[in-house]
Amino acid sequence: MKLGRVEGTVVTTIQHPFYEGRKQLLVRFVEPDGSLDGDNYVLAVDVVGAGVGELVLVQDEGNSSRLILDAIPNGPVRSVIVGIVDAAFVG
Amino acid sequence: MKLGRVEGTVVTTIQHPFYEGRKQLLVRFVEPDGSLDGDNYVLAVDVVGAGVGELVLVQDEGNSSRLILDAIPNGPVRSVIVGIVDAAFVG
Amino acid sequence: MKLGRVEGTVVTTIQHPFYEGRKQLLVRFVEPDGSLDGDNYVLAVDVVGAGVGELVLVQDEGNSSRLILDAIPNGPVRSVIVGIVDAAFVG
Amino acid sequence: MKLGRVEGTVVTTIQHPFYEGRKQLLVRFVEPDGSLDGDNYVLAVDVVGAGVGELVLVQDEGNSSRLILDAIPNGPVRSVIVGIVDAAFVG
Amino acid sequence: MKLGRVEGTVVTTIQHPFYEGRKQLLVRFVEPDGSLDGDNYVLAVDVVGAGVGELVLVQDEGNSSRLILDAIPNGPVRSVIVGIVDAAFVG
Repeated sequence: MKLGRVEGTVVTTIQHPFYEGRKQLLVRFVEPDGSLDGDNYVLAVDVVGAGVGELVLVQDEGNSSRLILDAIPNGPVRSVIVGIVDAAFVG
Repeated sequence: MKLGRVEGTVVTTIQHPFYEGRKQLLVRFVEPDGSLDGDNYVLAVDVVGAGVGELVLVQDEGNSSRLILDAIPNGPVRSVIVGIVDAAFVG
Repeated sequence: MKLGRVEGTVVTTIQHPFYEGRKQLLVRFVEPDGSLDGDNYVLAVDVVGAGVGELVLVQDEGNSSRLILDAIPNGPVRSVIVGIVDAAFVG
Repeated sequence: MKLGRVEGTVVTTIQHPFYEGRKQLLVRFVEPDGSLDGDNYVLAVDVVGAGVGELVLVQDEGNSSRLILDAIPNGPVRSVIVGIVDAAFVG
Repeated sequence: MKLGRVEGTVVTTIQHPFYEGRKQLLVRFVEPDGSLDGDNYVLAVDVVGAGVGELVLVQDEGNSSRLILDAIPNGPVRSVIVGIVDAAFVG
């Protein structure tokens, strides 16, 4: 998993029942101290109700994401926000 | 998923029935504001009728792409354009 | 999928029946206009009879490659040259 | 697999039974000589009791990680610390 | 697949029966001419008896590696040295 910060949302139409009523958030990957980790981002399905600016945990493997969403074997999803980070301790 | 902009098409012959009648588009990955995200691109199967210049949503995992195309388990495909982006909101 | 240009061949012995009689080519990834896309390369199984210098289409996911080679579930292969590119149109 | 050094811990809540009682550590990838390998990191489930500062071996593929954790097919996990490195010999 | 040069070995303890008696080698990825390809490396299971300094072929996908090792479905492994390179011809 990786850490990310929620940056915003994307409005689009995906023609698959899995995405009906699901929210995808723009997540920018960050370092454990919250600073940017390069400039990579991902669109991830939100299952924890994360808001813009929050530090989150992102699972970025299809099978794991389907398990977390209880969408085995039929969820066409790779990236999921699985938790809000309370704290990161380094050192 | 990632955001991309359709740049063009590729004319080729793939010897597998899955690709008969399917169109692959050149998609350049972009940032949420539409600017280039490095210079990576991908050839993705189009299922939404995207045109050159349009901002699109790209699924880039094999199992998810097969699900979206209803091509389980026999679709040899990794990348699919799954939606046209109406808007991206940041911040 | 990605675009590549065939650069050469590799002579090696892989101790698995799948590779008996199969040819692996050195493919350098390129941009749609044929210029180098960084300096990444891959060794890919050739199923289309590509020659050195030709622009080709490379599938780079294991399950898709096994499907294209009709080697499900027993083909230990990730990258396959699936087509020769006739033309790429940008813009 | 890759080598990494444990940097710290992350406190978060993941709403999936797999993660109850499991510890995820911040691991920074390193070169065989222990120096930083770029600045990539990963959050990995610890199964060996690694401590901060220790050099560890990280498995970073979902299916392999599920096997090592005996969590087939239901473990939503991609990265696992599978061993503490006693020594790396180069040359 | 990719080309690599064996750089050394790693001494560690992985608590899974698959790794009993198996040797993992440090492999640095190289260009077809033998020069370094950036500075990426991987720890790969050796099945061909490769020695330090030798040019080898590395398979870097889990399912393919399990097939080559005849460890389906229970081998927690992603990267395998599958051959020693006799020659690479470019151009």
